[in-house]
Amino acid sequence: MSKTIVIALGGNALLDPKTNGSVAEQIRIIERSCEKIAQIIARGYRIVITHGNGPQVGNLLIQQEEAKELVPPLPLDVCGAMTQGQLGYLLQQELDEALQALGVRLPVATVITRVAVDSQDPAFRRPTKPIGPFYSERERPALEQKGYILEKVGKGARPWRRVVASPDPKEIIELGAIRALLETGAVVIACGGGGVPVVCEDGNWRGVEAVIDKDLASALLAKELRAEMLLLLTDVERVALHFGSPQEVFLDRLSVSEARGYLLEGHFPPGSMGPKVEAAIRFIESGGECAYITSLEKAVEALEGRAGTEISAIHLGQRIKR
Amino acid sequence: MSKTIVIALGGNALLDPKTNGSVAEQIRIIERSCEKIAQIIARGYRIVITHGNGPQVGNLLIQQEEAKELVPPLPLDVCGAMTQGQLGYLLQQELDEALQALGVRLPVATVITRVAVDSQDPAFRRPTKPIGPFYSERERPALEQKGYILEKVGKGARPWRRVVASPDPKEIIELGAIRALLETGAVVIACGGGGVPVVCEDGNWRGVEAVIDKDLASALLAKELRAEMLLLLTDVERVALHFGSPQEVFLDRLSVSEARGYLLEGHFPPGSMGPKVEAAIRFIESGGECAYITSLEKAVEALEGRAGTEISAIHLGQRIKR
Repeated sequence: MSKTIVIALGGNALLDPKTNGSVAEQIRIIERSCEKIAQIIARGYRIVITHGNGPQVGNLLIQQEEAKELVPPLPLDVCGAMTQGQLGYLLQQELDEALQALGVRLPVATVITRVAVDSQDPAFRRPTKPIGPFYSERERPALEQKGYILEKVGKGARPWRRVVASPDPKEIIELGAIRALLETGAVVIACGGGGVPVVCEDGNWRGVEAVIDKDLASALLAKELRAEMLLLLTDVERVALHFGSPQEVFLDRLSVSEARGYLLEGHFPPGSMGPKVEAAIRFIESGGECAYITSLEKAVEALEGRAGTEISAIHLGQRIKR
Repeated sequence: MSKTIVIALGGNALLDPKTNGSVAEQIRIIERSCEKIAQIIARGYRIVITHGNGPQVGNLLIQQEEAKELVPPLPLDVCGAMTQGQLGYLLQQELDEALQALGVRLPVATVITRVAVDSQDPAFRRPTKPIGPFYSERERPALEQKGYILEKVGKGARPWRRVVASPDPKEIIELGAIRALLETGAVVIACGGGGVPVVCEDGNWRGVEAVIDKDLASALLAKELRAEMLLLLTDVERVALHFGSPQEVFLDRLSVSEARGYLLEGHFPPGSMGPKVEAAIRFIESGGECAYITSLEKAVEALEGRAGTEISAIHLGQRIKR
């Protein structure tokens, strides 16, 4: 039976921050990403694609804010579900086309995914994830009245931004649906934006205004699906120690214990490489064969051991490239 | 094996036009709708839920328009996919809760659905479906330059509105995924807003700015799934002849040929009861057992033959109630 890979697409696989973010630009980037993913699919793997939604949900929140006198804004959980529909559809369209170009005929389906978090997660007491529009000092009191936690993240006239909690993913509610589709041979798109966060309240799921890290959600999904591999795609080809400094060292291969050590030493910043390394560690510790952190461009080579940073259970001796 | 029902939810099952459309109001209406659907599910049927998205996509288009200086607006096909995510998520949440209250444990999954239409469909030459915000005379030239077809649908300062084509649904692209999930016992939410319309271009699917009638899409889905029943829910309990006039007659039961006759005589207006009767006819003609047109409140009774209008292949003698 073919091996299963969960591929987590970073924001740069969906939108180029240097462009205006028009749908034509989004489609151009997604098209390029899907060409790469199609090459992996064509090698016979079973694939689940997860993806970020930062810029998309940010845009949607700005639109909600701008039109708030005309249309009641929707909360963050609903906006997250909307971006799952948006990006799922765009990925389906482009992946269909890229697969067809390679002569591969496979259905591609998007499952709207809720991910349970613990309502007692300490992250709820210390929101850290900035989302949506920037606000002025003048707008601040009304927003705080509304229950928003604001943080001064910028300069100038609009320095304030809302921050929300980023709780740990505990359960993929739609796991059964994702597994069933995967078993029919479909390529499945799921856990978009890390999943819509829900907490259990009196035995029912209630949406919460939070953001789940998509790499950690992907690791949980990969574990639950008993996937063999987790491929975490980002904008650098390999994980580095002393990143951006003269001592910078890129890593080809890491054992879980090495990865954990470097993470504790603070080599991988939170909100960036940190969650990716943490996701890789969790996946391997839960029984996964191999996790890769690399760029979209090098994804195929990484699976063949020719690029990227490979994280696995067994210490195989580090080959360090400078 | 249990019978399969495709349930098409009308807009009134998702949003009360008399309220402000806040998410709390939307959830209240969806909760009530899901309580009714859960009662049907609890009777042992296999269920696919389809739904409209008119007010939701209208709101999203207004938000896109209001923020257009800050965020590039997304085209109608992408907005449609977003409302599938939005309403799919809200329906999943409320249906989970309603099923749990009845002691029924079934997964509920939403599939983002594309529906193919013919690029040569005559509807493209004569757009009729009004969507999104109202515009002033002053805004008209720029919009027409953009390729929008505008129609004067209102009075006052903003009488213009965009109209798009409503082409006939030809193929449910995600049929395989919907069927696979249904076979695992899940309740499936699909074809939201009639599906995202796509046309075939050089062998690939391209999204188009159109709106597919959700009842006709539901009839196609019911046919392809070989569902036994199609339940079309709206805001009246039964189909009427001479609706709203002193000669008004409500119908309990209709054969396909009677329904076709009344449709041709113009009893059922386009954009309202017309597509529902047409959907029922198509479903029965394609081999379906029974189609019902009724209100959400009477849905359970309709399936038991105690309410609603039943349309079937065989002429059973009309019982007319005044």
